Amino acid sequence: MAYELHYWPAIQGRGEFVRLALEEAGADYADVARQDGIDGGIDGMMAGLDAPPRPPFAPPYLRDGDLVIGQTAAILLYLGPRLGLVSESEADRIWTHQIQLTIADAVAEAHDTHHPIASGLYYEEQLPEAARRAEDFRTHRIPKFLGWLERVLTANPDGPRHLVGGRLSYADLSLFQLVEGLAYAFPQATERALGHTPKVVALHRLVAARPRIGTYLASDRRIPFNEDGLFRRYPELDG
Amino acid sequence: MAYELHYWPAIQGRGEFVRLALEEAGADYADVARQDGIDGGIDGMMAGLDAPPRPPFAPPYLRDGDLVIGQTAAILLYLGPRLGLVSESEADRIWTHQIQLTIADAVAEAHDTHHPIASGLYYEEQLPEAARRAEDFRTHRIPKFLGWLERVLTANPDGPRHLVGGRLSYADLSLFQLVEGLAYAFPQATERALGHTPKVVALHRLVAARPRIGTYLASDRRIPFNEDGLFRRYPELDG
Repeated sequence: MAYELHYWPAIQGRGEFVRLALEEAGADYADVARQDGIDGGIDGMMAGLDAPPRPPFAPPYLRDGDLVIGQTAAILLYLGPRLGLVSESEADRIWTHQIQLTIADAVAEAHDTHHPIASGLYYEEQLPEAARRAEDFRTHRIPKFLGWLERVLTANPDGPRHLVGGRLSYADLSLFQLVEGLAYAFPQATERALGHTPKVVALHRLVAARPRIGTYLASDRRIPFNEDGLFRRYPELDG
Repeated sequence: MAYELHYWPAIQGRGEFVRLALEEAGADYADVARQDGIDGGIDGMMAGLDAPPRPPFAPPYLRDGDLVIGQTAAILLYLGPRLGLVSESEADRIWTHQIQLTIADAVAEAHDTHHPIASGLYYEEQLPEAARRAEDFRTHRIPKFLGWLERVLTANPDGPRHLVGGRLSYADLSLFQLVEGLAYAFPQATERALGHTPKVVALHRLVAARPRIGTYLASDRRIPFNEDGLFRRYPELDG
């Protein structure tokens, strides 16, 4: 039975980390809300949040038969072994998950640059706060997160091509997506930070060159970045 | 060999979710940075962040022999089976983890009420932004998170005493700590929200009444809440 991904149909958002794993593995999956059109898709997705006995808090969530799993990192924890995107050993799996959770923290902070006060308000209702938070994110947080990923690559006993061991994991795919998102939202600040993290740049390129990822990125399944998503290009927040 | 918890020695913070699990299980553990005094303890803890080959991004981190694990939720994912604080089944484990990750999101948002702009700035440097963010957190987010936990308890086929199945898990302990923290930081708003979530209130009481948790809470191992931690009582942010 195909995996069912339930997520907002018009943004990459957090769902994109799951899409990339499914695409890289060539998995049979349905991006359910997209199939039903924007409005109908959203209604169905939201209805799924009320599904007992284990209601997810928010999209994305994955349905695999009777099992429903929310929280992006938990979805990848579940899918990793099934898609061949994580090592067999428990130590490697927990390390891969730890990296994913840290990338998730970076993603949440990137979101909060345009919504530092409330997700329920428009960006235009929190402009001065967004300007302050984005300045800190550009100056301190982007270099800190990318610098940590560079250190992880540098310290990998199997070499700096991958984050964990000597082969591709879902954490590598998520690094790719984090760099993509940061480079879209904060092109100047991200280019500066990446100047200090050559191994992160190399892994981003390696993932982009994977055949299935390349095919996916060129397809209409890849939703373009836009200003409804997590990573938004507001030039006034870059610099 | 004893587990080593490495965390800030003068706050509950994120480390408290790990401490509660270790205490409930009666596990042999060392709260390393506290043993070395505030200043020496912090130096040692920070030095551990540079430890190759798998450097944690931030405290807390756990050392179990050669294994070092950062990210609170990943630590609990690892400890859960070892401490008997999660069920055997994969479906239950991933659900427990999903709840933990959602509680972690609530904790991060609670932190950002007093630091909506930058963790590197003092609260006093972001007062107007904190007031706005806290208002949204009180009005929308506390009820949403506690309401979701109430729905999870209500929908549990094994009854509403526990979040997962019919016995205590680390997610129950984390619910306790979330409620403790919210009630400390936002006493009025939290009391209002808890008026709508009687099952959350009952589970909070059940955890507090566990013998080992009771002993722990009454001991000097339980650091009092204070205004250096995640949950801070600034009366101007409550209401």
